[in-house]
Amino acid sequence: MSSHPIPAPADPVPTPGAPPPDVLRCAYLDLQVTDLAASGAFYADVLGLVVTAEGPGWVALRTFDEFIHHNLLLREGPVAATAAFAFRVRSPEDVDRAEAFYRELDCPVERRREGFAPGVGDAVRVQDPLGFPYEFFHAVEHVERLAWAYDRHGPGALVRLDHFNQVTPDVPRAVAFMEDLGFRVTEDIQDTAGTVYAAWLRRKPTVHDTALTGGAGPALHHVAFATHEKHNILAICDRLGALRQSDRIERGPGRHGVSNAFYLYLRDPDGHRVEIYTQDYYTGDPDNPVVTWDVHDNQRRDFWGNPVVPSWYTQATPVLDLGGRPVALTQRRDDSELEVTIGADGFSYTRPDEDAPMPSWKQGEYKLGHQL
Amino acid sequence: MSSHPIPAPADPVPTPGAPPPDVLRCAYLDLQVTDLAASGAFYADVLGLVVTAEGPGWVALRTFDEFIHHNLLLREGPVAATAAFAFRVRSPEDVDRAEAFYRELDCPVERRREGFAPGVGDAVRVQDPLGFPYEFFHAVEHVERLAWAYDRHGPGALVRLDHFNQVTPDVPRAVAFMEDLGFRVTEDIQDTAGTVYAAWLRRKPTVHDTALTGGAGPALHHVAFATHEKHNILAICDRLGALRQSDRIERGPGRHGVSNAFYLYLRDPDGHRVEIYTQDYYTGDPDNPVVTWDVHDNQRRDFWGNPVVPSWYTQATPVLDLGGRPVALTQRRDDSELEVTIGADGFSYTRPDEDAPMPSWKQGEYKLGHQL
Amino acid sequence: MSSHPIPAPADPVPTPGAPPPDVLRCAYLDLQVTDLAASGAFYADVLGLVVTAEGPGWVALRTFDEFIHHNLLLREGPVAATAAFAFRVRSPEDVDRAEAFYRELDCPVERRREGFAPGVGDAVRVQDPLGFPYEFFHAVEHVERLAWAYDRHGPGALVRLDHFNQVTPDVPRAVAFMEDLGFRVTEDIQDTAGTVYAAWLRRKPTVHDTALTGGAGPALHHVAFATHEKHNILAICDRLGALRQSDRIERGPGRHGVSNAFYLYLRDPDGHRVEIYTQDYYTGDPDNPVVTWDVHDNQRRDFWGNPVVPSWYTQATPVLDLGGRPVALTQRRDDSELEVTIGADGFSYTRPDEDAPMPSWKQGEYKLGHQL
Amino acid sequence: MSSHPIPAPADPVPTPGAPPPDVLRCAYLDLQVTDLAASGAFYADVLGLVVTAEGPGWVALRTFDEFIHHNLLLREGPVAATAAFAFRVRSPEDVDRAEAFYRELDCPVERRREGFAPGVGDAVRVQDPLGFPYEFFHAVEHVERLAWAYDRHGPGALVRLDHFNQVTPDVPRAVAFMEDLGFRVTEDIQDTAGTVYAAWLRRKPTVHDTALTGGAGPALHHVAFATHEKHNILAICDRLGALRQSDRIERGPGRHGVSNAFYLYLRDPDGHRVEIYTQDYYTGDPDNPVVTWDVHDNQRRDFWGNPVVPSWYTQATPVLDLGGRPVALTQRRDDSELEVTIGADGFSYTRPDEDAPMPSWKQGEYKLGHQL
Repeated sequence: MSSHPIPAPADPVPTPGAPPPDVLRCAYLDLQVTDLAASGAFYADVLGLVVTAEGPGWVALRTFDEFIHHNLLLREGPVAATAAFAFRVRSPEDVDRAEAFYRELDCPVERRREGFAPGVGDAVRVQDPLGFPYEFFHAVEHVERLAWAYDRHGPGALVRLDHFNQVTPDVPRAVAFMEDLGFRVTEDIQDTAGTVYAAWLRRKPTVHDTALTGGAGPALHHVAFATHEKHNILAICDRLGALRQSDRIERGPGRHGVSNAFYLYLRDPDGHRVEIYTQDYYTGDPDNPVVTWDVHDNQRRDFWGNPVVPSWYTQATPVLDLGGRPVALTQRRDDSELEVTIGADGFSYTRPDEDAPMPSWKQGEYKLGHQL
Repeated sequence: MSSHPIPAPADPVPTPGAPPPDVLRCAYLDLQVTDLAASGAFYADVLGLVVTAEGPGWVALRTFDEFIHHNLLLREGPVAATAAFAFRVRSPEDVDRAEAFYRELDCPVERRREGFAPGVGDAVRVQDPLGFPYEFFHAVEHVERLAWAYDRHGPGALVRLDHFNQVTPDVPRAVAFMEDLGFRVTEDIQDTAGTVYAAWLRRKPTVHDTALTGGAGPALHHVAFATHEKHNILAICDRLGALRQSDRIERGPGRHGVSNAFYLYLRDPDGHRVEIYTQDYYTGDPDNPVVTWDVHDNQRRDFWGNPVVPSWYTQATPVLDLGGRPVALTQRRDDSELEVTIGADGFSYTRPDEDAPMPSWKQGEYKLGHQL
Repeated sequence: MSSHPIPAPADPVPTPGAPPPDVLRCAYLDLQVTDLAASGAFYADVLGLVVTAEGPGWVALRTFDEFIHHNLLLREGPVAATAAFAFRVRSPEDVDRAEAFYRELDCPVERRREGFAPGVGDAVRVQDPLGFPYEFFHAVEHVERLAWAYDRHGPGALVRLDHFNQVTPDVPRAVAFMEDLGFRVTEDIQDTAGTVYAAWLRRKPTVHDTALTGGAGPALHHVAFATHEKHNILAICDRLGALRQSDRIERGPGRHGVSNAFYLYLRDPDGHRVEIYTQDYYTGDPDNPVVTWDVHDNQRRDFWGNPVVPSWYTQATPVLDLGGRPVALTQRRDDSELEVTIGADGFSYTRPDEDAPMPSWKQGEYKLGHQL
Repeated sequence: MSSHPIPAPADPVPTPGAPPPDVLRCAYLDLQVTDLAASGAFYADVLGLVVTAEGPGWVALRTFDEFIHHNLLLREGPVAATAAFAFRVRSPEDVDRAEAFYRELDCPVERRREGFAPGVGDAVRVQDPLGFPYEFFHAVEHVERLAWAYDRHGPGALVRLDHFNQVTPDVPRAVAFMEDLGFRVTEDIQDTAGTVYAAWLRRKPTVHDTALTGGAGPALHHVAFATHEKHNILAICDRLGALRQSDRIERGPGRHGVSNAFYLYLRDPDGHRVEIYTQDYYTGDPDNPVVTWDVHDNQRRDFWGNPVVPSWYTQATPVLDLGGRPVALTQRRDDSELEVTIGADGFSYTRPDEDAPMPSWKQGEYKLGHQL
């Protein structure tokens, strides 16, 4: 495994003089859905997230190991979109720090002592320089940690919110900004020309609390929940098959190259993408080795070489500004990972050595033809 | 689950008056390979099959639970092909019965008291009316059953030969013949017009000892080995990824609809297809319910709805006649499963109800274009 | 692994001239329980067996892969006891054969064309020469096989009835009789003097349909249900822990030496013992190697050397005669496995070589003192 | 789950004015063994730890996810003992902080710029006020992280050093001192009188980097390595069984109540205890709920209620002072967990409600008789 530094951005976000908040971890996603009954059924009944509380137009859900109020807040609204990527900070004062940090950047900032979400107290929401709605909070209602409540765990029990994944056009610029916020890169995808296609960044010592995927953004690529073991993820597939909802499966299951985790991608009733994820590795040392994957390594996204379905690259869901309006997308100007991984013959199979023979059983895969 | 009888063939193989042999189970595959070192490395070093014995130009391998000499015999030869699908019969007299059964059908038959393979005694080989080389034997050398030898089991230990899969153009005709031989159908794939695309038949009480897949035949579709658990199959994928041999993975892993087993398809150095398989169900009662799947049920081949790669339908490896010459293929005249499961728009996604909406993330999958 | 023939019994049951029925497999246990609500809650709600039907005083349950009416019939009665070990036979005529076989032995025999149990047709019940109530039937109502109904499977889904285990004083005598009935030994436990402590016998090609455990009998040692994987068994333990019913766990989980299966023993609300079991091996060849374990091999009952709790040897539940009265026990006269595996120092740790050192961390285990 | 604060110690270690070092995590154990060949074979060949380097009298091993030089250093010496519990700190300056912190406490302190172990740089070793030899280092040689090297992973691959466990007589005193060092309690075991039997403390956000177990100390209770999944731990048991080394298994496998992890305890050739451990939970929030278990809750140590073998409580291995001499033990004066969990009848089964009935199959377990 090699590591290549991500180039400095041409047009960086200025680094604030104010210190960043001490972010503990990604904590919850505030997700706007267009049909609360349908989405609630998917997340609570199909995926088995625990309902902490619900009210008119909203339901708050959590994973089995969680002790804060929720990891997912569904709110009914006119469009499918993310209202906030919410992070927990170490202390109440870190909310102040977050507010000062973003105010110095002249971002839209809103502070609410009473909080923005059920069960959550004093918080600040911002639209960051990349266009994403972020929330920072410390005060939160504690609820029962159901880690030991195996009588309530289904075969595919979700035990933890693992990470977010954001689509943004200029990955080096976004990385530099997130590093200013105190995040650290653990892995990335580049090509030999130095183009950065994606990067993974963490606060808690896993591979990521959020990832930055190059594309038209700001947008939500996915939110990821963790299971204990791989068979739990397979059980979710089996359950979807039995329920005749296999169409919810977009990609996987498989083993990631990046992160080394086992994965599955689903699409919820609004098309929001949900990853089920397990078994990455500890990254908490300051000199944790960064892993750079070559964009032409066809095991980078799936360690078993299974191709990535095109929708996984091309589809993402909008984010909202602080006023609840969808944020317009900025197109990516760097090369597209999807496009560079399609050969001249129209097949998505890719490898650095163009002369390497491609097996016949790979040749029928994913010819994209004219439909893109 | 419903069951629809397979129609009687238009042009049946005559039913012999002689009783069929009492077949216990599929026992070993006699496989001709073009590079014994490469194939031996794949089966012994990568997949971890146990080498029982080897000699000039051959190696005999077995699974960990096996007590007969081998489940796979690799022999080097000029072309990649199957020399025999070998079945064990209950008694020495059943070898006589097999000989008489096929002689009555005027098939090519060769009886060798000394056996055709190392460790195997008195046996008969035939080229059956469908063109396949079959062997029947009882006498065989016992070897140590390594079921308890966990110090020798790798993470993807193969514990049993599970089944063969044969490509044949006329499935109802092949089924009727195999029923005369004493096999029983457990599952099949049909359409509402009664076309039969594939059938699964068993002697031992699992879903199959062999399956009949509609296509140009006679040909070997695959040979399948069983693991104890699903994670063993995932470990094989991980191992291939680590060895940078992920190109060996053709399809999967996934859950079959048919058989309910968890599966993975690999291609060996000659392109012979190998399935890794686990967890089907007991079928030993004479009134075991037959399950008929609709060819337009997109969960039939993969219960999670993941598409079948085209090569899986179109590629198979030759079989040899008793003289060691590849048998010419007969084309299938019934509808092709691959073709009927491609919509008018060129996508492989299929469902009985043409009006059902297809999610956008399925639309990029497997457009086949001009390459077939 | 070595194999030692079981000695001929001194006082054999005569071999009938009538042919035995062709037994397919163990099919269901007719179990008398003293509190149907409590037992139903245990088997249906805690273990997750599927209720096929219920009526006043009874409930019929099945496993997820089953297609016959039930694998367990609970009936409320005055004492906790087994009313019948029921086996399915290949054809209706095999019920006649079973009747003739036992009538020739002058056993109590009752034939009921309407069956003895809900969903079961023409059947014969006998009290066999060993004192056990056996039922043989072919006609049975088909129900939906829920193998694919993963939306109904819990984390510890029971997919198959695997076997019975019967306590009987004279194991060689019982083995010889069961062989006359068409069963075949797969494994046994002996000592160097030829004392037989237990034997495993099969019809279907697994390690057993029933086992014979030496002790005061006739009695039910346990009934065993299979899961797909080992984690399913661990999930049952976790569920019992979460429900604060860990007292139901008597022994395990662990790996058996005999059978090579992964196991767990529970006790139901009446004290009936239930095993959860997974992953033994194929035994269907007529020359399948028999494995004889030395009674002093401390890995025979638990391959990891964990000691067997004394109750597992000393406790069993009664069986009923055809009139519903508990059958009196006959004491074992051969050596007791429990006693011979306790050293002179009162510890249960055993090994053939008395001089082998016992680690200090094994010395505190299972000193039995005066309580036996 | 409830939480009860641990009482302040009667005789506290003074809190230094110097700030503690910023400890990242437990990093490696420096273990003295009496037969390097035997110990190396156990850790490298049986357990499959990766040998990073070796030299005369020593071998350095690591887990598959590790990127620092080693997690276990075996050094041959005259007695079996722990030479150092080594922790990695965030920066080089934290080594200075560690030195100052312990010098203020007048502990034996040794600073070596060249390090104490192969591959490790500037470090300080101390004998802490509880008598334990601790090392703090930052500089360390990076080695290849073999997380993706699945071709080298066995079925029981150890992927991470998880924690240490130390035996100390006065748990509240030890906890208070470790809190001064910056550790935080995640779980503990108490009785209603406030006696503290054990406590778990963390730096990295898992349940622990070290635990404090009440007993005669200072001593090493165990060192724990993590696997990805539970089946990996079962595979270690199977491997030990196959190698006829099942005597190495002291306790388990099972589910802990405390930590919710799945566990197995082994004893190495010198009797040092090694835990294999998987799947506890995230504890990184500052207000992470502490879980206090009642010493009479018989699911606290094994969530399935399986009894703890006495040796697990009574046996531990010595630690060395900075001169390499074994440190004398101080006896525990508080109640013993082993003794309070044995009933008046001599059985180890325990529960808060003395009137709760004990099932008959639990009564034979672990009667301790006279041997204590």
